Amino acid sequence: MRNIKMKVSYDGTNYHGFQKQNRTGLRTVQEALEEALGILTRENIVVHGSGRTDAGVHASCQVINFHSNTKIPAARFPLAVNSVLPPDIVVYQAEDVSADFHARFSARKKTYCYTIFNERQMSPFWRFYAYHVPVWLDVDKMREGADGFLGTHDFRAFCAKNTAVQNFTRTVFDCRIEKEGPLLRFFVQGNGFLYNMVRIITGTLMEIGKGRRESGEIPVLLAGRERKLVGQTLPPQGLCLVAVEYSEKP
Amino acid sequence: MRNIKMKVSYDGTNYHGFQKQNRTGLRTVQEALEEALGILTRENIVVHGSGRTDAGVHASCQVINFHSNTKIPAARFPLAVNSVLPPDIVVYQAEDVSADFHARFSARKKTYCYTIFNERQMSPFWRFYAYHVPVWLDVDKMREGADGFLGTHDFRAFCAKNTAVQNFTRTVFDCRIEKEGPLLRFFVQGNGFLYNMVRIITGTLMEIGKGRRESGEIPVLLAGRERKLVGQTLPPQGLCLVAVEYSEKP
Repeated sequence: MRNIKMKVSYDGTNYHGFQKQNRTGLRTVQEALEEALGILTRENIVVHGSGRTDAGVHASCQVINFHSNTKIPAARFPLAVNSVLPPDIVVYQAEDVSADFHARFSARKKTYCYTIFNERQMSPFWRFYAYHVPVWLDVDKMREGADGFLGTHDFRAFCAKNTAVQNFTRTVFDCRIEKEGPLLRFFVQGNGFLYNMVRIITGTLMEIGKGRRESGEIPVLLAGRERKLVGQTLPPQGLCLVAVEYSEKP
Repeated sequence: MRNIKMKVSYDGTNYHGFQKQNRTGLRTVQEALEEALGILTRENIVVHGSGRTDAGVHASCQVINFHSNTKIPAARFPLAVNSVLPPDIVVYQAEDVSADFHARFSARKKTYCYTIFNERQMSPFWRFYAYHVPVWLDVDKMREGADGFLGTHDFRAFCAKNTAVQNFTRTVFDCRIEKEGPLLRFFVQGNGFLYNMVRIITGTLMEIGKGRRESGEIPVLLAGRERKLVGQTLPPQGLCLVAVEYSEKP
């Protein structure tokens, strides 16, 4: 049986997240992909994503894999699947990979980008893709704060309360802020992420940028392990999964 | 009576163009602005735009003016109007101007940008803001072609058939193509534009980029004055009004 890996981009605005829900009536990206691949292959396809994204969260590069006996060459998949998918989900690359490749378990690094639109008035073009902060943010201070997340830590304080996870230790390889005109892009790269972790990290950095917190307090907050002492969870529309890396070319 | 000038940005996706329609049930940007300003000033407001934009066309900078006796200071207008407007229309600047300023008749130069997304697969994030061209386009050839539009010409061949206009002479000051990753941005600056003119200019340049036309044939097409001999009208979602210039600060 073939194991096919795909790179997928989606606008999460109209989806209840990536992962299939038990409740009906909640449209998810995984279901849309499974349906489209099912039509194409005439098989029951199960899609594995590199990770779930929440309702309203986007992906410019989500990686998935699925098993199939289809004879369709991998190079033909993007165009074929896109002809069946709705226009807010796009497959842009597909390849056959070895049997042991799993989009989630084989992933070594993931990168998320959180976008803040930092102008007095919001742009109508960014309303689904950024969070609006109308007051001035001190980017230098936020960058100082961002450095505090680097390394391996217990990230319990930066995780939503409603999680079943037992192990809160994650490694953050990169946490940097790029400014492009009115846009502030917060890139966070790690070996894995807890529930809402990037949105809470960015929310805490934003409070540093507003002068409500000190840039040096991140290590204290990490050590404190108390969700209620750190910043707010920023809304989903600013978040985008931008890269997933694997240890070797599968 | 005050004459107030405003800069407005809008996502035209859900509007039947800028200008108020006689038919009911077709939502337009002008109506949305007049309603919001009416609520704010408690007057019957008539909005004059620098020009109409078609259904689905966007503006990152549309200029409007209106007359009012309101006592609201101009600097307060953006926040106040935006609190009443839907999120796809945003006012980002307002100022009092002299009585003879008219957003349309005082305008000297307007700049439109047409965006083509030039990759094999479309990006879901650009589906409302760009036109997808999946085949390679020869940007150098298109730039050669663009030069042919510079200057004062009879643009009859580059105007939709259904127009009441008598004078087809317009001056194009600038016609250039910028490449930003997969995006091709066609900027056209002129003293005025005929119906669908930018979308037909870009459509003709695209055909040059595909190798279906010669880059040197623009002067011939202009001289020919025949709509049916030039390129297709590209769809509205790629078009955006990006600047309106006035002869002096009003």
